[in-house]
Amino acid sequence: MRASILTIGDELLIGQVIDTNSAWLADRLSELGFEIIKILSISDSSRAIAEAVNELMGQSDIVISTGGLGPTSDDRTKPTLCELFGGQLMLHKPSLSLIEQLFHKRGLPLTETNKNQALIPSSCTPVLNYHGTAPGMIFRKGNCYLVSLPGVPFEMKNMFTGGVRPFIEQNFTLPAIVRLTVNTFGIPESFLSDKLRGFEKYLADRGITLAYLPSPSGIRLRLSATGDEKSRLSSLLDLAVNELKGLIGENIFGFNDETLPSAVSKRLREKNTTLAVAESCTGGYISHLITQLPGSSDIYRGGIVAYSNEIKRNVLGVSNELLMSHGAVSRPVVEAMLDGTLRVFRCEYAIAVSGIAGPTGATTGKPVGTTWIGVASSETQQVELFTFGNLRDINIQRAAYTALFQLLKFMNHI
Amino acid sequence: MRASILTIGDELLIGQVIDTNSAWLADRLSELGFEIIKILSISDSSRAIAEAVNELMGQSDIVISTGGLGPTSDDRTKPTLCELFGGQLMLHKPSLSLIEQLFHKRGLPLTETNKNQALIPSSCTPVLNYHGTAPGMIFRKGNCYLVSLPGVPFEMKNMFTGGVRPFIEQNFTLPAIVRLTVNTFGIPESFLSDKLRGFEKYLADRGITLAYLPSPSGIRLRLSATGDEKSRLSSLLDLAVNELKGLIGENIFGFNDETLPSAVSKRLREKNTTLAVAESCTGGYISHLITQLPGSSDIYRGGIVAYSNEIKRNVLGVSNELLMSHGAVSRPVVEAMLDGTLRVFRCEYAIAVSGIAGPTGATTGKPVGTTWIGVASSETQQVELFTFGNLRDINIQRAAYTALFQLLKFMNHI
Repeated sequence: MRASILTIGDELLIGQVIDTNSAWLADRLSELGFEIIKILSISDSSRAIAEAVNELMGQSDIVISTGGLGPTSDDRTKPTLCELFGGQLMLHKPSLSLIEQLFHKRGLPLTETNKNQALIPSSCTPVLNYHGTAPGMIFRKGNCYLVSLPGVPFEMKNMFTGGVRPFIEQNFTLPAIVRLTVNTFGIPESFLSDKLRGFEKYLADRGITLAYLPSPSGIRLRLSATGDEKSRLSSLLDLAVNELKGLIGENIFGFNDETLPSAVSKRLREKNTTLAVAESCTGGYISHLITQLPGSSDIYRGGIVAYSNEIKRNVLGVSNELLMSHGAVSRPVVEAMLDGTLRVFRCEYAIAVSGIAGPTGATTGKPVGTTWIGVASSETQQVELFTFGNLRDINIQRAAYTALFQLLKFMNHI
Repeated sequence: MRASILTIGDELLIGQVIDTNSAWLADRLSELGFEIIKILSISDSSRAIAEAVNELMGQSDIVISTGGLGPTSDDRTKPTLCELFGGQLMLHKPSLSLIEQLFHKRGLPLTETNKNQALIPSSCTPVLNYHGTAPGMIFRKGNCYLVSLPGVPFEMKNMFTGGVRPFIEQNFTLPAIVRLTVNTFGIPESFLSDKLRGFEKYLADRGITLAYLPSPSGIRLRLSATGDEKSRLSSLLDLAVNELKGLIGENIFGFNDETLPSAVSKRLREKNTTLAVAESCTGGYISHLITQLPGSSDIYRGGIVAYSNEIKRNVLGVSNELLMSHGAVSRPVVEAMLDGTLRVFRCEYAIAVSGIAGPTGATTGKPVGTTWIGVASSETQQVELFTFGNLRDINIQRAAYTALFQLLKFMNHI
């Protein structure tokens, strides 16, 4: 089964906005078993829309389009589709009622323009929009469906999951696909692929495909199996994951949507304990990664961004002798930062980082990228030297994720 | 002049990767005066590549493609283009020499596969790649050019700016376009557009177009003028900006690439002074925004993420009475946090934030989104209440950017 994605909007074609809808939809559609053949972006012009819809419908079993459904005159998708598929604009009462609720909740008056959003072509099957004013529309021509959704990512995603996905599952016979993502850290891609050479053969023999998804927050390994029976595929993947654990177990920190910050938070919560962070080169980024997650105040007590030596001395109690004899970017200073953090925040666990993010700050023997990362409990501590690269942004990210990974390993071993 | 963008790669069609190259290229091409008619993503298949190239070249004056130029057999762009445009693969010595330098610098041995990257079709004009192994290629058919670049964003951008852009300027007669972005904060889009109704008319009369680019870090207003003479257009835009300053001057914090963190850092540097930050609900994000910028240690002394009341007491010296009688999310506590920050970090300026990012933490009279933001110098302080929305992520971002904007206004007034 072939699918295409069509994103409509002038803002895409002048580069004002990065199209994130397409990758999200492509991911969901491939998970459902479709082969995506084209992702196309065009402007808000009736002619461009009609041409693209006709072309893509001629090549695909389903086309998902997003955008161009706003209430103003520069949004051309609805009138164009109405003309293309026939029928006339009719009031869709359930959509009107949702629009009324939306405006009522926001305390805003409902204008005629907004009411008109509930008019949809009689030739379509509507998709309810619980978070915005534009209903979705599903059209059919021959054996191909066109699904038109609004371009606002939050609305589009909810409508796809709640309305379009069930429609697809009902109207298409698709292969069973099971996917599982294994999230790893601390092993570079080339080493990982060397280590997994035999495993890749194992997967190939069982018809499982493997994709490497690298980023500064780790390499995710995506396993996919396609066949008839979901349960059989799930067992196949479970066996494969066990195999993988035997090979790179210590580098696996989670599965699917788990991230290093969420894995660390979960572990702290399981242990019913708390963490504080002392950061130098990461400048608050570790604290940000943890506090981004809802409920972080249960497990995170706070942090110090100790950018100057004075703060390392005055707040964390790092001695002037250590700072002078070893420099701020050194093992003894990070050890003292850990002690200070545990004392000041009265917590069970601490992270401390001191490094040179660049582009300036390098000294003899300490190039840009030199980073000491320490983790500690009230009983013991562990400090290691890492050497990252030349790019400030990436160094900050790598140092932060490495610190979280070090803490996770540390908590699992003690 | 019409342009199309073609991005090639299986990873795009299964949604593994968000296509950021297209928006970047679309922005650059529209700035050069092109109308972008299509952005198309296809898989690494020779047939798909040949079909897409033929189709887009039939509709455009220039097609820029990215991706599919890797050294492995699943990268099909080069052989396909060689077949399509004729000629044979020839060694391009300047490219080979760049590849040799690259491997030498990284201390890696140069394999045959890597050397083969320097083979390009004799029918193309090469574009040098200083940061990777795949040279760019420019082909011509009739009056249309096809430019093929690697998909790695960093390599692609450098090659476009250094090689493709000059080629375009030499081979196309394009209108003069001048663009200027005015960066605003603290005024919602609907209010802004009401305030600028007359100004939009003023712009329309002078042939200047206006685009609103909203985000949690502010609304950027992009002015573009098209014509024959760059100098005349620049003067037109300068006059328009003066007009705009008269209308919303206090909301303008910078131009073009300036951001709130960069504007605050610049102002602190001009004053040769320093800042420290005490954060509660923003959880380190303000410090992260400032320390992301190179050289931030000149102006940033450090920060405290005071997630628990205990830290507010012990490190910042906020009294227990204040915390008990007013709660942590209150004016008096933020005032005390400001005093504590100035004292602990011995700096001239301080920011303090205390709020409820959500989803939990709301109390009677203090819904999710309630945020007190304070800024201070050693002489005076200013604390204000803001009420943001229900989404944690957005609340953290809005609180952080609002705090930076408050500080910028504060520094400009005293």
